[in-house]
Amino acid sequence: MLSFDFNTLRAAYAAGGLTPTALVEEILRRTAEDPNKVWIHRLPEAALRKYAASLEGKDPASLPLYGIPFAIKDNIDLAGVPTTAACPAYAFTPDTSAFVVQKLIEAGAIPVGKTNLDQFATGLNGTRSPYGACRNAFDPAYVSGGSSSGSAVAVAKGYASFSLGTDTAGSGRVPAAFNNLVGHKPSCGWLSTTGVVPACRSLDAVSIFALTAADAEAVLAVAASFDAADPYARAVEGYGFDFGRAPSFKFGVPRAAELQFFGDTESERIFRDAVARLEALGGEAVEIDLSPFLATAKLLYEGPWVAERYQAIREFFDATPEALFPVTREITASGLRFSAADTFAYLYKLKAAKRECDAVWASVDCIVTPTAPTIYTIAQMEADPIKLNSNLGYYTNFMNLLDYAATAVPGGFRKDGQPLGVTIFAPAAQDAPLLHLAAKLHGALPQATLGATGVPLAVSPAPARCVPCTTFGSPSGTFAALPSGQVRVAVCG
Amino acid sequence: MLSFDFNTLRAAYAAGGLTPTALVEEILRRTAEDPNKVWIHRLPEAALRKYAASLEGKDPASLPLYGIPFAIKDNIDLAGVPTTAACPAYAFTPDTSAFVVQKLIEAGAIPVGKTNLDQFATGLNGTRSPYGACRNAFDPAYVSGGSSSGSAVAVAKGYASFSLGTDTAGSGRVPAAFNNLVGHKPSCGWLSTTGVVPACRSLDAVSIFALTAADAEAVLAVAASFDAADPYARAVEGYGFDFGRAPSFKFGVPRAAELQFFGDTESERIFRDAVARLEALGGEAVEIDLSPFLATAKLLYEGPWVAERYQAIREFFDATPEALFPVTREITASGLRFSAADTFAYLYKLKAAKRECDAVWASVDCIVTPTAPTIYTIAQMEADPIKLNSNLGYYTNFMNLLDYAATAVPGGFRKDGQPLGVTIFAPAAQDAPLLHLAAKLHGALPQATLGATGVPLAVSPAPARCVPCTTFGSPSGTFAALPSGQVRVAVCG
Repeated sequence: MLSFDFNTLRAAYAAGGLTPTALVEEILRRTAEDPNKVWIHRLPEAALRKYAASLEGKDPASLPLYGIPFAIKDNIDLAGVPTTAACPAYAFTPDTSAFVVQKLIEAGAIPVGKTNLDQFATGLNGTRSPYGACRNAFDPAYVSGGSSSGSAVAVAKGYASFSLGTDTAGSGRVPAAFNNLVGHKPSCGWLSTTGVVPACRSLDAVSIFALTAADAEAVLAVAASFDAADPYARAVEGYGFDFGRAPSFKFGVPRAAELQFFGDTESERIFRDAVARLEALGGEAVEIDLSPFLATAKLLYEGPWVAERYQAIREFFDATPEALFPVTREITASGLRFSAADTFAYLYKLKAAKRECDAVWASVDCIVTPTAPTIYTIAQMEADPIKLNSNLGYYTNFMNLLDYAATAVPGGFRKDGQPLGVTIFAPAAQDAPLLHLAAKLHGALPQATLGATGVPLAVSPAPARCVPCTTFGSPSGTFAALPSGQVRVAVCG
Repeated sequence: MLSFDFNTLRAAYAAGGLTPTALVEEILRRTAEDPNKVWIHRLPEAALRKYAASLEGKDPASLPLYGIPFAIKDNIDLAGVPTTAACPAYAFTPDTSAFVVQKLIEAGAIPVGKTNLDQFATGLNGTRSPYGACRNAFDPAYVSGGSSSGSAVAVAKGYASFSLGTDTAGSGRVPAAFNNLVGHKPSCGWLSTTGVVPACRSLDAVSIFALTAADAEAVLAVAASFDAADPYARAVEGYGFDFGRAPSFKFGVPRAAELQFFGDTESERIFRDAVARLEALGGEAVEIDLSPFLATAKLLYEGPWVAERYQAIREFFDATPEALFPVTREITASGLRFSAADTFAYLYKLKAAKRECDAVWASVDCIVTPTAPTIYTIAQMEADPIKLNSNLGYYTNFMNLLDYAATAVPGGFRKDGQPLGVTIFAPAAQDAPLLHLAAKLHGALPQATLGATGVPLAVSPAPARCVPCTTFGSPSGTFAALPSGQVRVAVCG
């Protein structure tokens, strides 16, 4: 099977052995069936062929994502295709694509379809969809992770080279872990949310699933384009110390008291192995106290941010609450109990929590945690949908509240064949160092494979070089290290 | 009468003609009566003498604020003295001083007393106090401006060299205009709010009243000290282009359609004169559209931020609402009508508004507006307390929401002898350029005088040089211009 990783596709295009139209035919073959419930809308054959045709005759080297197929979480607009957010009654058909989707298409990427999700991106497990529980790419008895469930499985199954998800509390990372993918949760605001159905608009990030960290970085280079129409957009800033390419660096490891695997000893082994690999890559492990981060995570679900989910669909919810998936309705309605005064009180708490958490950056360049403590079967999840979902967010819920960037990296497999992974994170704007380190960490994993395709990861001596540094980012056109001393870390709040 | 401006006091200390104890005796004489209702608590003679005694024998040059007397708005703690926030039932006596007060005392400044204010800093007029309406320093029939009413009048009357106010919506600027003072509203977070009774905690700034801009800058240099215990604290950042010391610069002037004087032609003349002085100082006037700023200002009072005022005193308010001044109670209770969802909806609106307003910084270095459209008598204000108060905030309400720094500068007098002024503002961190330009603008005012003292403003060729640049700010100890290209302006949100 042709691997859809960027290097393979690019080499095939460059050699003339592949055309976009031939790629589309291959995708049509691969996606004829959908046993995992990946899709809400697959693009019709004619539409796919049209995208391919628009690329034929162009120089593959002229477009950074020439002929690269991608999947789109169905809370992100693709012109002319319904956006459902996994709620059929909510569906609308946008005239224009989301800002970020348009950037990708302009760069040569080919949209394949709109993917299943936990309704309104509320969930971390992938079962909360009237389009059916999305099934894990390795074992359909297991959850896919969510809320960007279909986007992850689409890449893992080889239906697309990369995909867009959204990530408010872990929705771009947990499904990566459960499907052996890289999941990058960019710095908030780097990827426009214009044309994205909000979850918690003050916290939402569009995220990227890819087979490799280098592929994710190439997508980021195109997707991170400042959108003046998005009030939460932020221009790409330079990063500081590139701990991902340095011969030595310091990474935080939570002390044992705050590590939580819910009894999954295989998950713990996978995490310990990743720590050892980071050390072998030149990292110095520094024990850190994760409790302020965990306390911040609690704010997200105990506090008023859930009211943003209500605000995002307020009129729809007020008019037709019965149209929501039951668990989604229950969670969304829970936002109604908070007042404005409560909200400000929690915003103050968050400010204090961020101050406390940010102190860690004085001693480490990044932190590594498991991406999720463990994985559950769909049957387990459906039996206890709130608590087990909450368990999955143990290591992810605090990230956006604290304005950090994070990359989920494959960590290998449990004995039963289920993949899990680790997440490395750092303050906003450190996306490139995170992705560079993710590439090395993934490359150091013995017998690493790409998603669920079985294709071995090809370890390149300079994994991220496929995108020249000088073309990374926007609007300045450069994404470069800042001069020494110009990085704000400990008091960046 | 000995002028209390810093240069005069410093010269007197240096020459040996003045001692802190002699200064204290002079203050006791000046403050024996309080016809303007400036004070809530004057420091007892023994306490004042103790502060003075602690300075005797020290080298005046060893402390940046050696023997400089200051007044403190009574929502800011001074150890051992009650803090009332102008609500007797709310009073408590703190064991420690507010962080910023402590910094000033450590720098040699002498606290004189706690000043009257609009209760809980809710108001811009100075009449909303059970300790009596604070009276204008020039004509007691007129309002002092508020909420930092007593702090402004204390400096104008020569009771103190400078004072601390707080400024959430204009409380540090309107009283400056009405009492012929410089009022600096620093970049939010530069002055710690630890030990300050919050108004809207997410927006509050401790502010500085002074007789001259140079004096305000000298206070800022001491007061702007990063407080790790204040979650909203921000370290002092370098500024960009020093438009306040440059031979030419661009300043925005609102187009006529958005200028509002409520029929006060004298106020309009004072504003036009200030614009002409800025042009004479090398400024190029650029007409700007103030409507996005005015729309932002409306958010403050139409939106949920008033709920922060409730949250700040929630338990007290719930237990004893009758303890509040009637108009303050009414305003505070109005915060109860907003939900969490409403709050987030307004936070999104503010994000969009800031994006729109910030676009102006591509074309101007700073903007000048009247500080307040006009002034009212106490009788007028008491007859229509909500509407006329709201009128006073026409040019001030948007500032903290937009994260700008602002300096109110004396603009001369109406024919009836009432002073008014103008405000120059710029994005956060541009405090020094604003104060430098304020010094020049004040110096260019014909027959400029200091507060209500009648003392002529001494125009120094380098007004701000009394504080060496290299000792300005914290925590790095320097407050310097950034290298070219390092200033974030248009997308600083």
